[in-house]
Amino acid sequence: MKEVVIGIDIGGTFTKFGFVDREGNLLAEGVSPTDAFEGAEAYLEHLAGELKKAEGRIGEAYRIVGVGIGAPNGNYHKGTVENATNLNWKGIVPLAQWFRRYYDVPVKLTNDANAAALGEMIYGGAKGMKDFIMITLGTGLGSGIVVNGDLVYGHDGFAGELGHVNVQRGGRACGCGNLGCLETYVSAPGIKRTVFELLASDHRGSGLADYSFNELNSEMIYEAAKKGDPIALRAFDITGQILGAKLADSVAHTSPEAIFLFGGLAKSGDFIFHPTKKYMEESLMGTFKNKVRLMPSGLMDKNAAILGAGALIWKDK
Amino acid sequence: MKEVVIGIDIGGTFTKFGFVDREGNLLAEGVSPTDAFEGAEAYLEHLAGELKKAEGRIGEAYRIVGVGIGAPNGNYHKGTVENATNLNWKGIVPLAQWFRRYYDVPVKLTNDANAAALGEMIYGGAKGMKDFIMITLGTGLGSGIVVNGDLVYGHDGFAGELGHVNVQRGGRACGCGNLGCLETYVSAPGIKRTVFELLASDHRGSGLADYSFNELNSEMIYEAAKKGDPIALRAFDITGQILGAKLADSVAHTSPEAIFLFGGLAKSGDFIFHPTKKYMEESLMGTFKNKVRLMPSGLMDKNAAILGAGALIWKDK
Repeated sequence: MKEVVIGIDIGGTFTKFGFVDREGNLLAEGVSPTDAFEGAEAYLEHLAGELKKAEGRIGEAYRIVGVGIGAPNGNYHKGTVENATNLNWKGIVPLAQWFRRYYDVPVKLTNDANAAALGEMIYGGAKGMKDFIMITLGTGLGSGIVVNGDLVYGHDGFAGELGHVNVQRGGRACGCGNLGCLETYVSAPGIKRTVFELLASDHRGSGLADYSFNELNSEMIYEAAKKGDPIALRAFDITGQILGAKLADSVAHTSPEAIFLFGGLAKSGDFIFHPTKKYMEESLMGTFKNKVRLMPSGLMDKNAAILGAGALIWKDK
Repeated sequence: MKEVVIGIDIGGTFTKFGFVDREGNLLAEGVSPTDAFEGAEAYLEHLAGELKKAEGRIGEAYRIVGVGIGAPNGNYHKGTVENATNLNWKGIVPLAQWFRRYYDVPVKLTNDANAAALGEMIYGGAKGMKDFIMITLGTGLGSGIVVNGDLVYGHDGFAGELGHVNVQRGGRACGCGNLGCLETYVSAPGIKRTVFELLASDHRGSGLADYSFNELNSEMIYEAAKKGDPIALRAFDITGQILGAKLADSVAHTSPEAIFLFGGLAKSGDFIFHPTKKYMEESLMGTFKNKVRLMPSGLMDKNAAILGAGALIWKDK
C-alpha cells in the first residue's frame, strides 16, 4: 500500500484538509466549518466525520501514516493551540492529542505560516534551500523561518511571528493588542489602512475615494494601481518600503538565501515586489546586499497550507 | 595526554589568545598585535611565534586538538575573514587555511560575538539552553543567535548582525555605511552620542557638559548616572528603550529562553537592564510577554571571546 498523510489547515471560519502523498499530490480535499461548534471537541468530531467521508474517495491502496495540522497559535512542541484570538476555543487546546482519538498515527501541529514554509521547502521554490524565510500575506502577516534546514520553533514553540515586529512606536492598533505591528501595515487590511491615510492626506484625486472602508479591499487597490491610480501606487510603495526595511532586519538575524512572499498581496507582482526589494536592499548592511533573493512563493496557486501541514509528517519520514 | 584547544580573539588592535581545556580553564594566555603588520600572513607568522612561546608554559601533558578563532566578519562556512572594515587586511583572507601551516589540527572560525555566544552556552549562563541570544556591547553591538542548540550562521555564514538592524530611517551614521543602525545608539559610543544629543536639547544642568566628545566615555556616563545626573540617567533610559524595542523584534524571530548582555555597558547593571527589560516587555507580542529572561552574561569578568573561540572546537568533540 502507498503511504498518504492528512494535511489540515485550520482557519477562523473554515478548516481545509487534503490527503497528500509523498510527491505532494492532493488525492482528495475537503472543507469543514471551524466556528460552528461549541468548543474544540465538537469541532474535531465533525471534522473527523468529514475526513472519514473523504477517505473513501482516495481508495484502498493507501495507508494513512500521519496527520499534520497548521493552526493559528499552534505550539509545535506541545501539539496545542494556545489562546488563539481568532478561534472560538478558550485557553490551551491539546488538539494533537485529541486528534488521535480518530487517527492513531503521529499527529504534528504548528502554526499555519510555519506549515506553509515547510510546504515551500518540500514542494515549492525552496527545494534544496537550508536557510530561507516564508512570508504569508493575507488578513495578517505570517512567517516561517528556516535555519539550516529546520523550522525555527523557539523555546516555547511560537517563534517566527514577524507580523508582530514593531514598525512604529505607538503606531496602528493590532489585533494582538499592541500598537505598530508590521501586519497592521503589510497585509490586505494594512494596505487598505494606508490608502485611507493617503486619502486623508494627499490632494490628488483617486478612484478609491468612492469606496467606504468596509467596501474597499486589496484586490481593488491592485486593480486601481494597474490603471495608474496615484493613491494606489503610493500605497504599494509605502507598503513595500515598510516590508523591505523590516525584511532587512530579518536578514540581519538569520541571513537567508531567499525570502518568499505568498498570498493575496504577493499576487500584486511588481507593485509589491519592486518597492520591497528596493527598500530592503537600501536598508541591508553591506555584507548582505545583493545576496538575498526576494521571490514569489512556488506554491502561489496551490494549497500551500495543506501541503505544508502534510509536509510536517513527510519531512521526517 | 589531556587535550587542549587554542582560543583566539582577533580585535582591531590586539589579538588575545589562550589555551583552553575542556572544562573552560585557561592554562596560558597571551596577546599579539593585530594591526602592526603588512597583511594577514605576516600577522599570522608573528601570532604563531607567540603561540609557540606560550605553549611552552602549559607543559607537555597536553595535546592541542584544535584552534578556534573569533574574528570580525568571520565566515564560519569558509573559514575566511571577509572585508573586515576594522582590520587592515584587504578582501577575503583564508585565515583558517593559512593557520594550518602552523598547527595541523582542525581550525574553526566565526565572528567574535558568535564565539562569545558559544562561550556562554558551554561555560556561562546559557548552559543547558537550546534557544538564546547573546548581545555583546562594546565599541559596537555584536550578537550570536542560538536556535535549537546551534549557532545560526545563515546561508553565507554571517548571520546574527543585530548591531545593524535599523532603529530609525535616516538615523545616525554607522561605520558599516548605513544610517540608523542599532549599534549607533546602543554601544559605548552610542550612549555617548545620545548624551551629546541630550546636552544639545535638554535644559537641565549636567556634569557631563564639562567633557569634549573625545574625552567622554561610557564609564563616565555610568559614574554620572550613579550620582543622579539627569542627562546620564535619561541617556540610559533612551538606550534601554531602543535596545528593548529591538530585542522584542528579535524575540518575534527566534523566541529565545533568555537574552544575555555582555560587555562594558552591560556592567552598568540596573541602569541598562531596567529600561531594556521594561521596554522589551512593553513591545513584546502577548504570546512572548514575561517569558524571556534578560540576564547579564555569566562570563562577564572572564574572557568570553577566548573561551567562546575555544568552544568552537569543544562543542563538537
